[in-house]
Amino acid sequence: MIKVGIIGATGYAGGELVRLLMAHKEVEIKWLGSRSYIDKKYSEVYQNMFQIIDAKCMDDNMEELANQVDVIFTATPQGLCASLVNEDILAKVKIIDLSADFRIKDVATYEEWYGIKHTSAQYIDEAVYGLCEVNREAIKKARLLANPGCYPTCSNLSIRPLLLNKVIDASTIIIDAKSGTSGAGRGAKVNNLYCEVNENIKAYGVATHRHTPEIEEQLGYAAEEKIVINFTPHLVPMNRGILITAYASLTKEVSYEEIKAMYDKCYADEKFVRVLEKDVCPETKWVEGSNYVDVNFKIDKRTNRIIMMGAMDNLVKGAAGQAVQNMNLMFGLKESEGLELVPMFP
Amino acid sequence: MIKVGIIGATGYAGGELVRLLMAHKEVEIKWLGSRSYIDKKYSEVYQNMFQIIDAKCMDDNMEELANQVDVIFTATPQGLCASLVNEDILAKVKIIDLSADFRIKDVATYEEWYGIKHTSAQYIDEAVYGLCEVNREAIKKARLLANPGCYPTCSNLSIRPLLLNKVIDASTIIIDAKSGTSGAGRGAKVNNLYCEVNENIKAYGVATHRHTPEIEEQLGYAAEEKIVINFTPHLVPMNRGILITAYASLTKEVSYEEIKAMYDKCYADEKFVRVLEKDVCPETKWVEGSNYVDVNFKIDKRTNRIIMMGAMDNLVKGAAGQAVQNMNLMFGLKESEGLELVPMFP
Amino acid sequence: MIKVGIIGATGYAGGELVRLLMAHKEVEIKWLGSRSYIDKKYSEVYQNMFQIIDAKCMDDNMEELANQVDVIFTATPQGLCASLVNEDILAKVKIIDLSADFRIKDVATYEEWYGIKHTSAQYIDEAVYGLCEVNREAIKKARLLANPGCYPTCSNLSIRPLLLNKVIDASTIIIDAKSGTSGAGRGAKVNNLYCEVNENIKAYGVATHRHTPEIEEQLGYAAEEKIVINFTPHLVPMNRGILITAYASLTKEVSYEEIKAMYDKCYADEKFVRVLEKDVCPETKWVEGSNYVDVNFKIDKRTNRIIMMGAMDNLVKGAAGQAVQNMNLMFGLKESEGLELVPMFP
Amino acid sequence: MIKVGIIGATGYAGGELVRLLMAHKEVEIKWLGSRSYIDKKYSEVYQNMFQIIDAKCMDDNMEELANQVDVIFTATPQGLCASLVNEDILAKVKIIDLSADFRIKDVATYEEWYGIKHTSAQYIDEAVYGLCEVNREAIKKARLLANPGCYPTCSNLSIRPLLLNKVIDASTIIIDAKSGTSGAGRGAKVNNLYCEVNENIKAYGVATHRHTPEIEEQLGYAAEEKIVINFTPHLVPMNRGILITAYASLTKEVSYEEIKAMYDKCYADEKFVRVLEKDVCPETKWVEGSNYVDVNFKIDKRTNRIIMMGAMDNLVKGAAGQAVQNMNLMFGLKESEGLELVPMFP
Repeated sequence: MIKVGIIGATGYAGGELVRLLMAHKEVEIKWLGSRSYIDKKYSEVYQNMFQIIDAKCMDDNMEELANQVDVIFTATPQGLCASLVNEDILAKVKIIDLSADFRIKDVATYEEWYGIKHTSAQYIDEAVYGLCEVNREAIKKARLLANPGCYPTCSNLSIRPLLLNKVIDASTIIIDAKSGTSGAGRGAKVNNLYCEVNENIKAYGVATHRHTPEIEEQLGYAAEEKIVINFTPHLVPMNRGILITAYASLTKEVSYEEIKAMYDKCYADEKFVRVLEKDVCPETKWVEGSNYVDVNFKIDKRTNRIIMMGAMDNLVKGAAGQAVQNMNLMFGLKESEGLELVPMFP
Repeated sequence: MIKVGIIGATGYAGGELVRLLMAHKEVEIKWLGSRSYIDKKYSEVYQNMFQIIDAKCMDDNMEELANQVDVIFTATPQGLCASLVNEDILAKVKIIDLSADFRIKDVATYEEWYGIKHTSAQYIDEAVYGLCEVNREAIKKARLLANPGCYPTCSNLSIRPLLLNKVIDASTIIIDAKSGTSGAGRGAKVNNLYCEVNENIKAYGVATHRHTPEIEEQLGYAAEEKIVINFTPHLVPMNRGILITAYASLTKEVSYEEIKAMYDKCYADEKFVRVLEKDVCPETKWVEGSNYVDVNFKIDKRTNRIIMMGAMDNLVKGAAGQAVQNMNLMFGLKESEGLELVPMFP
Repeated sequence: MIKVGIIGATGYAGGELVRLLMAHKEVEIKWLGSRSYIDKKYSEVYQNMFQIIDAKCMDDNMEELANQVDVIFTATPQGLCASLVNEDILAKVKIIDLSADFRIKDVATYEEWYGIKHTSAQYIDEAVYGLCEVNREAIKKARLLANPGCYPTCSNLSIRPLLLNKVIDASTIIIDAKSGTSGAGRGAKVNNLYCEVNENIKAYGVATHRHTPEIEEQLGYAAEEKIVINFTPHLVPMNRGILITAYASLTKEVSYEEIKAMYDKCYADEKFVRVLEKDVCPETKWVEGSNYVDVNFKIDKRTNRIIMMGAMDNLVKGAAGQAVQNMNLMFGLKESEGLELVPMFP
Repeated sequence: MIKVGIIGATGYAGGELVRLLMAHKEVEIKWLGSRSYIDKKYSEVYQNMFQIIDAKCMDDNMEELANQVDVIFTATPQGLCASLVNEDILAKVKIIDLSADFRIKDVATYEEWYGIKHTSAQYIDEAVYGLCEVNREAIKKARLLANPGCYPTCSNLSIRPLLLNKVIDASTIIIDAKSGTSGAGRGAKVNNLYCEVNENIKAYGVATHRHTPEIEEQLGYAAEEKIVINFTPHLVPMNRGILITAYASLTKEVSYEEIKAMYDKCYADEKFVRVLEKDVCPETKWVEGSNYVDVNFKIDKRTNRIIMMGAMDNLVKGAAGQAVQNMNLMFGLKESEGLELVPMFP
């Protein structure tokens, strides 16, 4: 059994991690860290865990944790993981960081977009970006894993096949994204109150959202060139789900069948990426609670553009599920262990 | 492997049955019946099943099914199962009927409340009412199983301990129930359109809802007397979940601890009934997607009444989950097989 | 023009008061008080008011306000109005208090249920309980008006005709209430976050909700006896609306027509109470945004009980709308001035 | 008093028209047409109108209506108005058509995108496109008015100032739109059931939505060139509201202040278009129930693109409200008569 510790276990991503790990056969949770709820029973914070988890929340002590577990998940705000990690810890334990601290290779870019100083820049190079479908082999050997952001995961998997095949002009990429409200976290803010979000939709972080450079960096690897995009997220009145609708100009005339073949080839062996059938649009509800990303596309001959779409559960493939998928790879387990969840409908 | 056939596989309860059975290790689905979608791929009706289920929908042919499978689930409107079942079929296959056809022992009561003629009254006596926590031993031997209604399941499990202990006056029981909209089914009706249900709450079927006699019969067994109750369901703008709030007068002075002990004793060995801690109210969200029923109570000294509360997922413990629990019992499997689902939050 | 000041203008009830008063022909808002947002433009707090209201939020200074306006609305937490009011102020200005401070005549009862000391008990006697349909004449002469609570308004108007006619046993009254989330206010609390409320329903304040004694007192006047009831509110995933479902035993055999006549007579001249037609259940959506209360009932011969139902918008008739209705009466205006709002659907 | 007849009074747009006209001082509704509900009381179809409207639904008889009223609103599916209108009718009565029949000047384009034959093409030229902010003078003289589509209204008002000022490259315009579910109408379809829409978001009509040519034609007038765009609508789990997020490349370097001045100038005299302050994103909730369109923009120096945003209530400014605004212009009334509605929040 792999011993697991979680730092930040009472946020929504942390809670989802707990849900997934409870159903994982090779894992034992040893430490539920939550600075806000120290000594409170976890099942009093998340009542769904009543009679399932008896443990209390612990402090976020990474040093101590490193002695007790095999892997630490940090589901915490930006900066925390970077402030705690050190050589001693990394020598003892694998770290899967769900924050953005080690996702971006260029430290100046990180510091500019996140507005904080990176306190462990020396580990950025070594950290592996944990998009399993792309970096599988590197992930298997990682000791410090940067779990991708929710928007970047969905964007990357939806657009990547076309960049690999150089059929779109990377300079024309526009990503219009829509997210459920769990992505905003469990902090008590007026903006996230039920009555403020319900019956409402708005864009936020327009031209300034922090996931932008992460998307650009990752898409850039696929395109083999530096990429600058527009990325606009929107807040949608639903708990879970991310939908991205992306636009790009085609660089040559291509048929539906040609593009379909590119997606199919790219994801032929990928259990968690489903290329939908012709004219079927991805919907977030069809992947809810699961680790799937549903992708599809539509060619618009009139404008010579292609519309790419992707839907996933932001808390699963966009956070906790992908973290577990990474853990499975890092520990030599079956990649889908604990993740063979059928989406829940309705 | 137990071979399973489903009649009515494209309703919401049928779809949930498919979701649960896909994760059940001892089961193989052989037949997805749906008169409305014959020959259509199941995953085109329920897109969540894309790349998970490849089969097409079949006709609802119970005769043929009886030759091919070990158990048939009927997730169909009232009257259908009763119209199809016969001795020949029952000799070959076990039947778990999710409709109300065999729940009520008194055929006149059934015909009065459901407004249809019962066409197989001869099997009512033999049919076992599948509330596992109550009829476990009989269920194990059943060949025709009447899967309980959603409201009756939640009501019965919430109130039963107090009737068994004769601390409430059965003639004073009032059940005020609230249900998510999946309980209304997948039929295309104006009343169930998004814009009609959203931002709205209403009572329906006041003093006439068909689950009333089922609740009364089952509570009557616990009370060892004939019971007449008030039952008022309400439609709530959410997909899943049933909450019942029940009221009754106490027959004697009792303390919180005494009542708590009654619940605890009643459900000590029941995995799927969780008696919450003092002053914690059941919430439907905390059981979503799982087979749990969360129950609790509050004594009101001022009025000498007790308020009983129960929350569950109407599609799981209220339909498909309980059907699987029954199947497990009927086939000698571990009762919780395929049902160890952690509730999903948020 | 009547000059109006509002203390607590940035809560949900305060915001609704502003919305209604902006459309009121005889009123001019002179003071938007909000301790939390002093000097911030009101339209930055409530963006719907952009280009409609140019004023900034002011401090909650009742002394100063009394010199500038004709009427002060206090849409503030319990205790604030009581702590500010004095003879000098009451001599200059009329006060309509949307909090509970002056609703309950027995100060001990107030202090017990609200858990605070009443600091202006000397004004309780003089204060008029502003349920317009009941206390119209007294309201016209009031200088200190206690605007009724949301649940009490809906409960009282739904049950009152039967108590006046003595056809129900007051000791058997049970009120099961359901409210949209705006009733919980705009405070930044985890419990009221979108993801906690959405797809969820729960009871709260079971047997302890503060509106209980207010309902009991008011129903008691109608019954001409002291009444003790059960009152259980529930939180529903919608912004606005209260539905109450009340139960009581009939004291004699009565027909539908007899009861209907009692309701019709009671509300014959009441514009804002609509007695629905036979078998039509009140729905909150049908009154949204308006000052209507829709009421109806159902006799259950089997149990000899009657089920009473009422639906209204908690922010309008349950708070701001009723406050404006009271203001109209207090200033000799047409009672429905500014309140002739057609409910918005969907 | 202007006598009004409505054909299609029981759809959501028809219902909203009734709500608005009931509060309009210069109007009397004489005819509520609804083929589906002939002879049924209107308030039984829309319960919010109980005790407000006593009339029954009538057949959709335009000939007869033309004799009785001054203006006919057709809130009906495409093709109906075109099939009914004739010279005799137009000689007697003004027509405001909420369908698309007379919006597109090129009949071939209409027939291609709508897939039906236009049966009154001879009136297309005369018909005035009723976007009040653009065609005010022509509207005043119109006898056949084509009320704009919801998406085109919001798109046009959000983008138009930049085309007029030639600061964006029209060939790069991409519109990503999001709509509440009332836009899908009141037809009983599985796709629009509560459980299918709730907790879900999806694109639909990708590259094929019928509003595309209408948007292109109208933007083309502003740009003084033929325009081809991408338009992708999405279905959002909320009742009301449209948000559009549009993207285009800037043709020259411009500052925030310069662009702001363009919007401000364009809408200086427009009551119903609100240009928001810097960095404030339009939200649908802030305009709900009102005739406002809130617009704003963000320049992205990194990509040399501008992001344009607009929010409105699809049933008000996107349908019934704009129809009333047009009626006011056509009859020489104050343009905002009956439309001075403060948005409802929450």
